[in-house]
Amino acid sequence: MNSLDKLAHEFAKLPGVGAKTAMRYAYAVINMNAADAEEFSRAITDVKTKVHYCRECGNFTEDDVCEICRRRSKDVICVVTYPKDVAAMEKSHCFGGVYHVLHGTISPLSGRGADDIRIKELLARLDGVSEVILATNPDVEGEATAMYIAALVKPLGIKVSRIAQGVSMGSDIEYADSVTLSRAMESRIPL
Amino acid sequence: MNSLDKLAHEFAKLPGVGAKTAMRYAYAVINMNAADAEEFSRAITDVKTKVHYCRECGNFTEDDVCEICRRRSKDVICVVTYPKDVAAMEKSHCFGGVYHVLHGTISPLSGRGADDIRIKELLARLDGVSEVILATNPDVEGEATAMYIAALVKPLGIKVSRIAQGVSMGSDIEYADSVTLSRAMESRIPL
Repeated sequence: MNSLDKLAHEFAKLPGVGAKTAMRYAYAVINMNAADAEEFSRAITDVKTKVHYCRECGNFTEDDVCEICRRRSKDVICVVTYPKDVAAMEKSHCFGGVYHVLHGTISPLSGRGADDIRIKELLARLDGVSEVILATNPDVEGEATAMYIAALVKPLGIKVSRIAQGVSMGSDIEYADSVTLSRAMESRIPL
Repeated sequence: MNSLDKLAHEFAKLPGVGAKTAMRYAYAVINMNAADAEEFSRAITDVKTKVHYCRECGNFTEDDVCEICRRRSKDVICVVTYPKDVAAMEKSHCFGGVYHVLHGTISPLSGRGADDIRIKELLARLDGVSEVILATNPDVEGEATAMYIAALVKPLGIKVSRIAQGVSMGSDIEYADSVTLSRAMESRIPL
């Protein structure tokens, strides 16, 4: 395989990148100047060597403990599935506490049990916590994982909540799927 | 900027990649194993250090002269704009001769004249050539470039042709733009 095809082959490993797009990216790299390509190449190795999990919350960080864990009150913990969920929450500025990243969901079908995700680590940091917000995905595995964690945390006398599920803001009710609509109807809020 | 944002920033330089997709790619890299990421990183530097223009046709190659120029008859030359056009032609198996890559079009508006693309190099290799096929894009700049080259090559007694323009195979006439339809009508072929 020549270098160009090899690079396209590497790009094709990225999510949602097919053969044509991969080749387009490879051509873009070949048209970069040498310094830019060098920088791109180094960014890939850097991310693997410098970035690891935060010792407390499991989010990506280049330090021992991430900036969020260092700076914020640990009164409320928001439990998410992946580091990218933390990024989405932070972008919305809707939460000011700390996170806990599970790095997966409980999924008996895929052979992933409670011990395969960071649930033990969550239980170990509940001292002094007043509320645990479960922000796993609103799908079967995310719901099951949330229910499992709720059953473990509630008996400790800590408030447990789940993010609301309903129709997306700015969406058309006409196009909402029926499960979402039923959920939005059930969880309706008195005005 | 942390390593993850830095990598996303690099990915965002690729064509058609926005901030969200770039971050998705960066997360994919962080989830690769270290060896795969190393390979990806090396593929980027390799493509810049190993790949250059073929001395004859201007296509990308890792050798002095590319495989197509080494193996095929130089009787007919197909003139294209970019190396990716060679890749597209080769994929269709519609041409068995050699190529000439211009690396651009004549574009007075962008300040690119005939000397800024590889037209001199084309004229220098016309010895013994029986036909020059112009396969530049069917747009204003591609057409102008084709006309310019035709005016230079025809007086040398060499046959010059242009790839046919008309409705795409498998497309709906209903959705064809009017310029394409007019061209298809003008160039109609007697059956």
